[in-house]
Formats: sequence, C-alpha cells, structure tokens
Amino acid sequence: MTKTNAGNFFEDFYVGQVIRHATPRTVTTGDVALYTALYGPRFAVQSSDAYARALGYPQAPVDDLLVFHIVFGKTVPDISLNAVANLGYAGGRFLAPVYPGDTLSAVSEVIGLKENSNGKTGVVYVRSTGYKDDGTEVLDYVRWVMVNKRDPGAAAPAPVVPRLPECIEADALGDAVPMLDTIHWDNDLAGSRFRFSDYVAGERIDHVDGMTVEEAEHQLATRLYQNTAKVHFNQHTEGKGRFGKRLIYGGHVISLARALSFNGLGAAFHIAGINGGRHVAPLFSGDTVFAWSEVLETAEIDGRPDVGALRLRLIATKNRPCADFPLLDADGRYENDVILDFDYWALMPR
Amino acid sequence: MTKTNAGNFFEDFYVGQVIRHATPRTVTTGDVALYTALYGPRFAVQSSDAYARALGYPQAPVDDLLVFHIVFGKTVPDISLNAVANLGYAGGRFLAPVYPGDTLSAVSEVIGLKENSNGKTGVVYVRSTGYKDDGTEVLDYVRWVMVNKRDPGAAAPAPVVPRLPECIEADALGDAVPMLDTIHWDNDLAGSRFRFSDYVAGERIDHVDGMTVEEAEHQLATRLYQNTAKVHFNQHTEGKGRFGKRLIYGGHVISLARALSFNGLGAAFHIAGINGGRHVAPLFSGDTVFAWSEVLETAEIDGRPDVGALRLRLIATKNRPCADFPLLDADGRYENDVILDFDYWALMPR
Amino acid sequence: MTKTNAGNFFEDFYVGQVIRHATPRTVTTGDVALYTALYGPRFAVQSSDAYARALGYPQAPVDDLLVFHIVFGKTVPDISLNAVANLGYAGGRFLAPVYPGDTLSAVSEVIGLKENSNGKTGVVYVRSTGYKDDGTEVLDYVRWVMVNKRDPGAAAPAPVVPRLPECIEADALGDAVPMLDTIHWDNDLAGSRFRFSDYVAGERIDHVDGMTVEEAEHQLATRLYQNTAKVHFNQHTEGKGRFGKRLIYGGHVISLARALSFNGLGAAFHIAGINGGRHVAPLFSGDTVFAWSEVLETAEIDGRPDVGALRLRLIATKNRPCADFPLLDADGRYENDVILDFDYWALMPR
Repeated sequence: MTKTNAGNFFEDFYVGQVIRHATPRTVTTGDVALYTALYGPRFAVQSSDAYARALGYPQAPVDDLLVFHIVFGKTVPDISLNAVANLGYAGGRFLAPVYPGDTLSAVSEVIGLKENSNGKTGVVYVRSTGYKDDGTEVLDYVRWVMVNKRDPGAAAPAPVVPRLPECIEADALGDAVPMLDTIHWDNDLAGSRFRFSDYVAGERIDHVDGMTVEEAEHQLATRLYQNTAKVHFNQHTEGKGRFGKRLIYGGHVISLARALSFNGLGAAFHIAGINGGRHVAPLFSGDTVFAWSEVLETAEIDGRPDVGALRLRLIATKNRPCADFPLLDADGRYENDVILDFDYWALMPR
Repeated sequence: MTKTNAGNFFEDFYVGQVIRHATPRTVTTGDVALYTALYGPRFAVQSSDAYARALGYPQAPVDDLLVFHIVFGKTVPDISLNAVANLGYAGGRFLAPVYPGDTLSAVSEVIGLKENSNGKTGVVYVRSTGYKDDGTEVLDYVRWVMVNKRDPGAAAPAPVVPRLPECIEADALGDAVPMLDTIHWDNDLAGSRFRFSDYVAGERIDHVDGMTVEEAEHQLATRLYQNTAKVHFNQHTEGKGRFGKRLIYGGHVISLARALSFNGLGAAFHIAGINGGRHVAPLFSGDTVFAWSEVLETAEIDGRPDVGALRLRLIATKNRPCADFPLLDADGRYENDVILDFDYWALMPR
Repeated sequence: MTKTNAGNFFEDFYVGQVIRHATPRTVTTGDVALYTALYGPRFAVQSSDAYARALGYPQAPVDDLLVFHIVFGKTVPDISLNAVANLGYAGGRFLAPVYPGDTLSAVSEVIGLKENSNGKTGVVYVRSTGYKDDGTEVLDYVRWVMVNKRDPGAAAPAPVVPRLPECIEADALGDAVPMLDTIHWDNDLAGSRFRFSDYVAGERIDHVDGMTVEEAEHQLATRLYQNTAKVHFNQHTEGKGRFGKRLIYGGHVISLARALSFNGLGAAFHIAGINGGRHVAPLFSGDTVFAWSEVLETAEIDGRPDVGALRLRLIATKNRPCADFPLLDADGRYENDVILDFDYWALMPR
C-alpha cells in the first residue's frame, strides 16, 4: 500500500460525494504583500486599512482572487491531480469578507459526472466551498474538469449534468461587502473619477498595459496557493510533454488581467460573483498578458444604496495589445491570442 | 470619453498644481519580508524589533527606501507615465519613522516647468510628500522628469526652474529617528565595529559583493511598490523598443547598492536625507550590481548626542567590481559601467 | 584599515572561540508567506493557526527549516565567507517553537579545527545556537566547513576533532512541540490518513513530484535568510568560476525536498532533530528536484504519548524521478543525480 497520494480518477467520484480538503490555511498580511508583488493590484479598499475603515470595513479585506486561489488550491490534490483539462467555472459567489488572520478551509461536493464517449476520461462537476474556521462560508463556486479514468474498462456511471446558472442574480451579490459609507469614497485615492453610473452596457475598455510573466513568478504564486498541479512546476517532465514547457496556472492569468483592469475600472473594488470562465489557450513564461473588458450589464442590488453591480466580460490575450478588442474570428472561434474569457460581477460605489 | 488613464503630458502641468495620488497603502511585515528577500539588507535596527526597542524605537521601523519606493510608486501614474527620462532627485528628507500598520499616501506639487528647445518635451519639477493617514509627513523630496508633450504645437509655459538645495543641512536631519539610547547599541549584533567617529571625509569603501538581477525580482519589487511605469513590465513592447528589453526601475538599483553597502557601513542604519541622485545608465536583467561609497562629509547634528551624520556618495556599477572605485573618465564623463550616482545622508551611532 | 568584512580565515579560528553573529531578525508572517511561496509546504500545523491551536499550540509555529535557515544565515559572514565547501551537519535539535514576532539571534562556538595536509585549507567545526531575545534556545547544531587559510605558511593548530553523535537520542526530541491534544488531529485536514504506527523501518517512499528551480527563487530565499555566501548571487564572478554559474544554497534543496515529502509523509509535521546531512552534488537554476525517503527507524519518546519519532533518510536528486530510489552505485558511491543525503527525525501524531 503506497503512502503517496495518487489523486482521484474518474471512477473514484460519485454524485453526492463530499470531500474535505487538506491543509487549512491562515491568510496573513504576508500573503497580501506577495499578492501585490505578483500582480500589482491598486484597488484602494484592499490596499489600505485606513481607506477601508473609513468606508465601514474593520480593516482592508483580502483580495477576492487571493481567496479564490487559496480555496481552489486546496481542491487540486483531490479533484484535479489527474485532470486533463480545467473546463470551466460557474455560479461563483463571494459570501463574506476575508481578513488577515482568518483561516480558510475547503470542501467539495461532486454534483455531476459524465463519462466521455472515448471511455478514457470523464467530466467531474464539483461545487467547492471555502469557509473560515468558525464555519462562515466565504466563497462557493462550481467547476468542471476532465479527469482520466484509472481503468478505461471501468463501467460508466449514470450521467448527471447539473443545471448551472448562466449568471448570478444581481440581488444575490454583495454579501462580502458591509454597507459602505460612500461619502468617504475618495475618487482621487481610489484612482478613478468614474463610478457605477458612469458605465453603460456595451461599453468596451482597453486596459492598455501589458505584463510579461516569468517562471519564478507563476511558480511562487501557485505554491503560495498550495496548488500542487504538476504541470506548473516540473520542467523535467513538462519538457517532454505536450507543450515542451511548464503551463501557467489559469488563475494567475485571471489575477493579472484583473490587476491590469484597474486602468479603466479603478472603482470596481470587489469581485462579487463569477458567472463563468474559460481558459481558452495556455500561457507560458515569457508571454506578455494584455486585457480588455466589456460591460455586459449594469444592475442595482436590492437593499444596497451604496453599491451597484457591473457584469463584466474580462478578456485576456497574450502578446497582443487589446486596442481593437480581440475576441472571436469570423467563424465564431476565439482568436489565436485570446487566453481568457471571464464573466464576473464587480461592485462599484454609486 | 475613455475610462483609461493616459497619464499627464507636459502641457497638463502648471506650477502650483497639487495632485493627490491614488492608492493609499498600508505597509505590513509582509512588505518588509519581501524587501528583505529582494535585496538582503542586514541593518539590525530594521531587522529586529528587539534591537530597535532596546534603542528606543517602539518596534523595528520600515526600511527608509521601502518607504521611498512606495511613495514614489504612487506618483508614477500622474507624474511620469509619459516620461522619457527620470532626470534627478534632490532635497529628500525622511521626517518620521514608518512602522508596519501605517498607511501611506502621497501628494505632489508642481514646482517648476521648462519646455525643451525641441518643442516635443519639457521638464517637470515636483515636490512629492508621503504622509500617514493621521497626516504625519514621513518623506518629502523633489524629482524632475522629462515628459512628452501631447501636442508639440502647444504653447510653452513661462519657464520656472526651482532653486534646489545642493545638500540638506545636517541640522535638518534625524526627525525619523527617536533619541537613541546608544548604550544598547551592540556592535556585534549590528555587524560592524565602526561607528560615526571611525569614518573620515574622503574615505572610500569598496562594498566588494555583487548581486545579479533577474526579471522576476525587479518585477516583483516594482509591483510591490505599485509603480506602473510601463518600461519595467512589458517585454512585448520593450522588445521592439530602444533597448530591446525591459528596463529595471532605478529605485531597485538604489536598494541593491544600499544593501551591498552594509559591508563597510554596517552602522549606517538610517537614510536621513537624499541630497541628489542620478541614474547614469540603465540596468537590465542578468547584469550584476556592485557598489562603492565615498564619505563626502561627516557632521554632528545639533541636539543629537546619540547619532552623527555621514554624507555618502554611493556609486553603483554593472558587471564591474569596484576595487578601483570607478566613477569618471579622463574627460569627466561617467565611466561606461557606472549606473548610479547617489548622494545621501546616513546616520550612525556616535 | 579596511571597513569591509573579509570574513574569517582558517587561522582566525581557535577552539573555544565564541562568536556572536550579526543581525538579529524578527520572524514575521511575511517570512512565513514567502517560505510558502518558495517551497509550497502543506503541513497543516504550520499552515493554520486554527489547526495548531486545536492541538495545543498558541498559534501556528514557524516552519522548522525557516528557523534553521535564518540561524544558519547569520553564521555565514563569520564562519563560511571563505569556505571552500560545507562538509556536513550533525547533532541538530529544535528546542523551542518559534512564532511570528519572535526575534532570532545566533552564536557559534568553535569546537574543532584540523588543518588539511595541503596546508592551504582546514576544517572548522562549530556548534551554532539560535536563540530568542529572551534567551530561549530554539535550535543548536554542529556543522563543519572547509575554510581557506589566509597564509598557507601559517602554522597549523593542534588538531581537535569533536566526537559527534551519529544520531540524536529519541528521548531528547520533542522540546519544540507542546503536549498535543491529538484527539483534534484531523487526518483529512492534515492531508494524510497515515500516522506514526503506519510506518515501519525499511519502508521507502517515492515523493513523486518534481520542482524546477529558478535563479530568482533561490536568490529570494537566500537573501530572505540574510545569507551572504557569494556563490549564490554573483553571476559576474561565478560565470568565470568552477561551474560557470551560480550555486544554489544547499538549504534551499533541503526545503524543497522536505516540501515534496509531504506527499507520503503528510503527518510528519515537525523536524525534531538533524542527525546528519550532506550536499552530495550542486544544484543549479533550471534543474528539477525530486525526492524520496527511507524510514530508518521508528521510536517512541519517553513521556510523550502524543507523538512518535520517525528517523528518516531524505534523498534528493536532480533531473531524475525517484521511483527506483536512486542512491549509491555498485561501488558504493552516490549516483550522479543524487544531490542531498539528509538524516533527520520527524515527529508524527500517534
């Protein structure tokens, strides 16, 4: 009997299965500093205790995506160690603010299974929940991954494909933000004179700047999240693999694009929900990430006179500036340089 | 109307203009740890709460240059996003100690403007001030940058060139250091048996060690400071530019040279003033930084029996050891390998 | 008289000499976050305040190897700046838990000296002790290094070779771990269902995963530890040297291998003693580290019903997976790819 974790294969999962993931993690100001060094975010609420306190937070909350990556990282050894591909996200909600000192754990429930027709792989749908040690839920989201079967001859389970929301309802947003005293929202310090009412559906924003990624950077990030997916770290093996090089964690791209989006969305201080996301193409060390956003929808939130919600489509490219908003080609396929298509709700002060 | 910050051009500035910069920043022990990892400083006062407390600080203060870089970083989106060159610094003073937990913001006043004769660029002089959220000023300094005009045809403003001090008066130094109980200064723990009275004007010190810089390192540093200058991060664009590669933030060089200077200046625990500084040549990833110092002047400070001031000229080179103190050639020009000429006041225990 | 530290040469040491090392260092959650980012450790006790508290710690202790590296780093400027080789470790014990906020200092005593027959170098044996500012000892260990003589003509001292224990006694282990309330040890959160009684002497465990090292990573780590050994940082000089490249700090390898060993030894939460260690071959940037462990011995600890001790031999390789447990060749020499042979005691819950 081996002591080593070989990860779960497709036939190890069953609908209704609940998996408590390893390694609870206390988030600290050290993690916050590293997150800043890795991506360069400039949102005032997460950067300044003083700014956050003036608005009604007890202190600066931890960046939403840092919370996401930590929760996601915990799920990897159990859910996706034998994954061929991370297919998508849906139904993500940030449910409570996270502060330095909070300890995060994660649990996943298998909510769907569908073997692929090749008999070699199957799709596993899990709802993962991150929570604090007092039980407070801070995040839940669904992701689905294509996982190898251990034994191609194993019988296929009855297919269960969960119904996933195309989009989180606006009124379900905002639980991770206390009621804000927006009279203390300072546009100069926030770095943008544009607020909720200044954005309209259909508007496109080129975030202009580009960020080149180094191997050391994405490895530091992915280890910080205690994400153990093999493809990110092992050049000896990956050098002989599909791409000949290490693959960058998809979440690294989301964080880079989000940080770039400050230039044009400086008041979009909080990611309240993740409607969907796809990693359209891989990113490698040496590539330069650019990003642009489209405002898909603007929505008021019931009971929240302080903030409004923008539904945003965040597109990231590699080695291609986004002044012309690259997305789909004439045949409706993603253009070659597009690497991320991420649909989320951001909150902005009204 | 674009939502994106295009930065200010030369004709957007006017003398007397006051700019409140974005993104207040709470400094944490996480930032301090990263600063240590990036440069390897070994000054005992900043490294040890216990050592600092024995001397009279409430806890270890944050490294002066970390404060400088954070304040500087805030000014970039408003002052130097369209800068062609960062021409110099003067009149810098550290005014109060900064501790983990303090939140820093920055404001700049335009104190001079002079269009260049080519009509395409002009020099902007700003005095930038960093302050805590209770209003305490922690740093002010002047820098001047060459900034592009948006429209070469725009009329030139009346030239205003501020008078800048060649050197901070010694008696104006030390506000960021409480009166120290130097009986608790421990030479062994400080890593140097030499104190203020052991140094004489004219003395030259080779700091011996060299430090090679990697892309990931300077990018992590510059993002940590939330400095958004494009030339540091974007290989896609810089690869086609003047140097064919990313340019390293000049402040990174200052911090590397300062950390190297511990070897020979271990008791010079505090940078009290910045008299002037020039980035003589660019630094790139893969280059190795060396440094040497000349003691320009030694000065007592009125009312301070605890500490004395050394005026130091810190020279950094790339790919050239400094045993022969490289500086100027026979024609009075900087030698090829010199990259930094930095004139500052350091405090030492007496 | 030069102000620069040239380090000690062989003839500067004498048996009984006590050296107080420079730069006390307050360990913070920032250091902990960086340690996580550098190696990706997943041991629950060090990762989670909540998990540690449930067991009886006041908060999560700092990773043992981070403590080791910080103490080790302090000794470098005095002991091994002129070292040719770091020959070995022995007799290491972790004596008290270290928490963020604790300030660490180090002192070394020279316990042995032996000039080599070539007359150019000698071996220096030191016992180094790390302690908190209240005097609590947290770690002591012996290391021996080959150090250059300043003057090959200097007379050899009388040879003194200390008797070193081959192995720490099991009953001397565990001082750095409070009595644990192991009813709260949660296998799921700890990431392993195997505990002390599940391991047997002779058992071999392949840790499977590989980790490729980048220059920026080991430089960040080694500077974080304020370790000033020249060979790790200076490509200008090392490029002309023995290997043509920078040499990675041996401790970096130990930490990588230890983090990899979580996969198979997830409950081995604490390094209680270091019996011996050798850096068999150098590691360079771009190499991929793999590891495997052999259980040498299992031992109960007198008075400790909560934890047992595993004596482990941790072998690291470069660019070679460890499924076949590489170690010695037919002639009893280390195989080419082996880089570390590390003999230590780990504690596990019973």
